[in-house]
Amino acid sequence: MSPRRVIGIDTGGTKLLGGVVDEALAVRDRVHRLWRGGGRREVLDLMVDAVEEARAAAPDVAAVGFGIPALVDTATGAAGFSVHLPLEGVRFRELMEERLALPVYVDNDSNAAMLAEHRAGAARGALHAAMLTLGTGIGGGLVLGGRLYRGAHGGAAELGHVVVDIDGPPCQGGCPGRGCLEVMASGTAIGREGAAAAEREPDSALGKELRAGREITGALVTELAHDGDDTARGVLELIGERLGVGITSIVNALNPEVVVIGGGAIAGGELLLEPARRVVAERALAPSRDQVRIVPAHFGDEAGMLGAAIMALEEGQV
Amino acid sequence: MSPRRVIGIDTGGTKLLGGVVDEALAVRDRVHRLWRGGGRREVLDLMVDAVEEARAAAPDVAAVGFGIPALVDTATGAAGFSVHLPLEGVRFRELMEERLALPVYVDNDSNAAMLAEHRAGAARGALHAAMLTLGTGIGGGLVLGGRLYRGAHGGAAELGHVVVDIDGPPCQGGCPGRGCLEVMASGTAIGREGAAAAEREPDSALGKELRAGREITGALVTELAHDGDDTARGVLELIGERLGVGITSIVNALNPEVVVIGGGAIAGGELLLEPARRVVAERALAPSRDQVRIVPAHFGDEAGMLGAAIMALEEGQV
Repeated sequence: MSPRRVIGIDTGGTKLLGGVVDEALAVRDRVHRLWRGGGRREVLDLMVDAVEEARAAAPDVAAVGFGIPALVDTATGAAGFSVHLPLEGVRFRELMEERLALPVYVDNDSNAAMLAEHRAGAARGALHAAMLTLGTGIGGGLVLGGRLYRGAHGGAAELGHVVVDIDGPPCQGGCPGRGCLEVMASGTAIGREGAAAAEREPDSALGKELRAGREITGALVTELAHDGDDTARGVLELIGERLGVGITSIVNALNPEVVVIGGGAIAGGELLLEPARRVVAERALAPSRDQVRIVPAHFGDEAGMLGAAIMALEEGQV
Repeated sequence: MSPRRVIGIDTGGTKLLGGVVDEALAVRDRVHRLWRGGGRREVLDLMVDAVEEARAAAPDVAAVGFGIPALVDTATGAAGFSVHLPLEGVRFRELMEERLALPVYVDNDSNAAMLAEHRAGAARGALHAAMLTLGTGIGGGLVLGGRLYRGAHGGAAELGHVVVDIDGPPCQGGCPGRGCLEVMASGTAIGREGAAAAEREPDSALGKELRAGREITGALVTELAHDGDDTARGVLELIGERLGVGITSIVNALNPEVVVIGGGAIAGGELLLEPARRVVAERALAPSRDQVRIVPAHFGDEAGMLGAAIMALEEGQV
């Protein structure tokens, strides 16, 4: 009998990434799709299409795991609240099992990323871990007592919506809150604070880009910060400090062994992590603050796909 | 064989409360002590003395449970960081078992209170629950997946040190943080905001008390609020709203079924809880915000003692 292989599919707000994954977590036969708009039917069709492409390369796969940008009731596999894709109310597992004629496992995409980091990445070996994925928004994942923690109805680990500023700006992406970590410290926030800093300091490299008509994104700020622009570095320091305040709450509430920072904005690396660690060291309670490691994610863009595959490999017992 | 009985001992920062507790959680033979100052030895002697008094009335007790105001390593029963009593570094369980010649169970006092509310109080039947005890400070407890959650090394559930204001005032009681829920919404904060409101509104009932030379405490503000003074009510509303911001973070991070509010300051009742619930309804994520009940504690001052007894009744398998 050949080793067990599965398909992992990660669906974000803009694209789909999939692959055939074996028990050693080696990935082959990657598939990519971009959403072409459309409604629920088009989105589901594209997912099925991606699975079938991977399956054509590996007909022996035993199951499929999906990470989707929605609340998921893991008891039923139904999708709840979703900002980015029209999946709310879809009986996802049932429907996909029918269309694919394979066992299907499904969870929130951030939970899937946390799972990959826990089983084989930066949180490997930890019983208690948190993950923040900094992108357009901030996703979260929790492993508590060695297992993914989902709360009463799958709504837990929305760590991007831990409040850091009671009087902060309105949050984004369908969140009714104010001053949530997401609006204060996401990749989007890096771009917004970067634009403000470029206005204030027109002679900085960042300011020159603005004057040249470039859009000030989180990625551009990060690039200029790595190139040594003090203004851009100051923006990452500010964001890193805010991140540290959010992590302080997580550390005091949950005493994790490790907090993993992933997502596109972790391209800032130590320019974000150093100020975050400093704030936690200054503001969190001893001894929890001394017990936590704050580290970058091990898996980049593939964490969600790998985590989805791990769900399938572990047959949902995650 | 007679039913199993144990002694529960709750030690706060100012006093000790104990009792003999049976499997139906009926309490008899209560004992009280006030700390008379002194060091570690005097504190431990007073605890032993209280246990012996209860035991004289019920010589058949099978075990003793302690809730102590310290971090506790439940694997070893050793006390860690403690603000209120000189217990740091004491091998508490070992030492007490030697002095009492009985099995001893020990945990943090807030964990003990959460346990009592979970097993027989306001969080009964919930798999996922949080508790905040509003007093001089704010203690916290978590039940996740049906069991007390302690984190990696017993430091979890410090929910009073979830940050609500990134630029808030320095925290209290040995916490190096700023803008923690504890400094914003504890009983102490009610008194402090009450004093400020009394200054601002000298013709209010609260203002008149200040002019008469009375100290504006949380208890006085709460009493005048219940008597109908709008200024005092405004203070409880402000504190309740801040409490709601802290609960918003807990709801988004953990998706609990119930958040229990206890401690002396819950004397404010609905005058605190109504604004807290309103803020959670406005600011937390759906559907978690609609799934959580925010309720007053069922057990008053006796929650910690009962929880300590439950630890002993359940032989530490909490």
